[in-house]
Amino acid sequence: MRTAMEGGVTGFVVVTGYQAERVSTFVRALGERLQVEVTTVNNPDWEHRENGYSLLCARPYLQQAPFLLTMADHLFEADTVRRLLGASLPEGGILLACDHHRCNPLVDLEDVTRVRVDTHSGAIQAIGKGLADYNAFDTGLFLCAPGFLDRLQEAIDAGDSTLSGAVRRLADQGQARTLDVSGAFWIDVDDDAAFRRAEEALLGLARGKERDGPVSRYLNRPLSARLSKRLAYTGLTPNQISLFSFGLSLLGAALMLIPHYWGLLLGGILAQGASIVDGCDGEIARLKHQQSDYGGWLDAVLDRYSDALLLTALALHCWQIGTPAAIPIGFLAVTGALVLSYTADKYDGLMRDKGGSRFRLGRDLRLLVIALGALFNLPLTTLVVIATTMNGEAIRRMVVCRG
Amino acid sequence: MRTAMEGGVTGFVVVTGYQAERVSTFVRALGERLQVEVTTVNNPDWEHRENGYSLLCARPYLQQAPFLLTMADHLFEADTVRRLLGASLPEGGILLACDHHRCNPLVDLEDVTRVRVDTHSGAIQAIGKGLADYNAFDTGLFLCAPGFLDRLQEAIDAGDSTLSGAVRRLADQGQARTLDVSGAFWIDVDDDAAFRRAEEALLGLARGKERDGPVSRYLNRPLSARLSKRLAYTGLTPNQISLFSFGLSLLGAALMLIPHYWGLLLGGILAQGASIVDGCDGEIARLKHQQSDYGGWLDAVLDRYSDALLLTALALHCWQIGTPAAIPIGFLAVTGALVLSYTADKYDGLMRDKGGSRFRLGRDLRLLVIALGALFNLPLTTLVVIATTMNGEAIRRMVVCRG
Repeated sequence: MRTAMEGGVTGFVVVTGYQAERVSTFVRALGERLQVEVTTVNNPDWEHRENGYSLLCARPYLQQAPFLLTMADHLFEADTVRRLLGASLPEGGILLACDHHRCNPLVDLEDVTRVRVDTHSGAIQAIGKGLADYNAFDTGLFLCAPGFLDRLQEAIDAGDSTLSGAVRRLADQGQARTLDVSGAFWIDVDDDAAFRRAEEALLGLARGKERDGPVSRYLNRPLSARLSKRLAYTGLTPNQISLFSFGLSLLGAALMLIPHYWGLLLGGILAQGASIVDGCDGEIARLKHQQSDYGGWLDAVLDRYSDALLLTALALHCWQIGTPAAIPIGFLAVTGALVLSYTADKYDGLMRDKGGSRFRLGRDLRLLVIALGALFNLPLTTLVVIATTMNGEAIRRMVVCRG
Repeated sequence: MRTAMEGGVTGFVVVTGYQAERVSTFVRALGERLQVEVTTVNNPDWEHRENGYSLLCARPYLQQAPFLLTMADHLFEADTVRRLLGASLPEGGILLACDHHRCNPLVDLEDVTRVRVDTHSGAIQAIGKGLADYNAFDTGLFLCAPGFLDRLQEAIDAGDSTLSGAVRRLADQGQARTLDVSGAFWIDVDDDAAFRRAEEALLGLARGKERDGPVSRYLNRPLSARLSKRLAYTGLTPNQISLFSFGLSLLGAALMLIPHYWGLLLGGILAQGASIVDGCDGEIARLKHQQSDYGGWLDAVLDRYSDALLLTALALHCWQIGTPAAIPIGFLAVTGALVLSYTADKYDGLMRDKGGSRFRLGRDLRLLVIALGALFNLPLTTLVVIATTMNGEAIRRMVVCRG
């Protein structure tokens, strides 16, 4: 539903069958949370009749305009929805999103509905699970004219209550066409194995757009991906996860103020934990289509506070254990870290215009250095390293961008 | 020349007369600095013949395409140039930028060339200094077809070597039209009084686009404007001025490290001085058409360093005179100041989208608080005030933007 909404869908009719009460309660609650109209219709005869009959149960709500039809166990991309809604629909017919990549690893060849498409016109020539001569897969996403329901009624009256049966009738009249969405993500989640593949694929998509540094990519991301997989099934919003990550940093900084090694160590562990959790907010946001300008900005501002407070705590820790020289270095480290983040956006922009490479000393690296410094009980060295590298990089950027 | 280039002009022919050697040396050097082709032509007879004859001296260089003609003592806006270059030119004729605002305070009514424009067609009906029946002023900026030079030759052969004479000949044939640029800045700098008016007007234009806080507007800006007026006549670039302002802050911070009131005081004075000088880089950049993305960014990054170093110095000053409590407060002040700047762009953007007001706790105010704190020898109080207000405002922004 979230994906469909991002693709432009503004209301839902859900036909229930197995565990109807549970499903309709769930989707109505989700509709309220997403602020979208959800109508549920029960198919009392779901055990004895095919999916065409289920669709016909929703007929009273689908008289007006073309509607999108999808199976509840199919996942897809918002962009596929957007393309279907923007495509032209055969009068009284259907448009089926088809995948022509026959080696798509997410397709279960045993179960998928196969399609033979006329490669010139895009018309459906044949459709069915057992089809031997086929050149595409049915992705389970259709755009339907209301008139399609009349064909469906006819097919059911003639004794075939499958959707494929009605589609075949349309195909015979040249009213069933296809939209080539090869390469787009889609999956039919029929069993546990497919469910796991779907989880991995969705997490991969959510992760794919992150601008990761090396520490993120090889250390934090694998851990945060596992965490995201669990967090996805809770109601936690990305902003709540950002705040939780900030809370971990805050607690870590507080522990570092304790003038003993174990305070420093616990603080360092929490700092690295915060860095890992910090990878989840963006993943969850993309996974649940909850991205927002505000969310990204809040995350960035909290990250700056978290960086500054951890470095401050590190300096005060040194001071308390008798190394006051750490104070001025701590100020330089805080300044360097914050100025580096301050310059990041504009530096990236300027370097993009110049077509240069964008070497990044990111937050992932910074927090790992803090954690390692805590582990090896080298708080002063850590501050010196951060103050030197961050300010050095900021100055380098000022020089490089000039060129 | 800088204004014309910003308006789209790609080369210059300068006709010299009085002090020809000095003028041509100057404009050729300027051409090299601005990386634009400059040709100089001498009018040996400048004392006895009018401006039409001067233009004719440049004829060998003006055969190919329409050219822009302006008097060396006229100032104008880049946008007027842009509009003239984009306008359609009467075949073989001229297009004169005219000002229909008869109450323009920058116009010297005694000396200005007056124009009677046909308000329907925009054609010039009459032109001359003594014209009694007129409705516009000649701004001294023309777009001319090469054929205009033939008319000029004819006028000179007939004994009239003024430009206005040649324009009158074109007007009689309907080939002299006008472009209404009323409201645009232009001025004819004929004497000391006009020179001072021109200075003020240009500085006002350069200042006008600044996003000033109250301290800037009422205290810093009047002082920086005076300074800019002087700096404009030096070869200093905006980036050099940014670096100089940063140097003042750096020196101020160093002085604050001295554990005596006078160190604090001198440091505070330099901080406020840096704040005033910091207003000049943008003014000079706009005045000399030297704005650049890099320049604005460098200025912003140096400002962040300057803020952080002054607050650090203030905290270390307190520490040295026996107030170690200033250290953690100093860390919070540095963090607050930098995070506030970090949030500024995105906050402004989000608030603009929401159409809300943009209350700003800017750098001008911050540096004044530091200077006043130094003057009244209240470094700890200053840090507390800055740490509280900056972090409070940053948190307020995080809450407000959410709404």
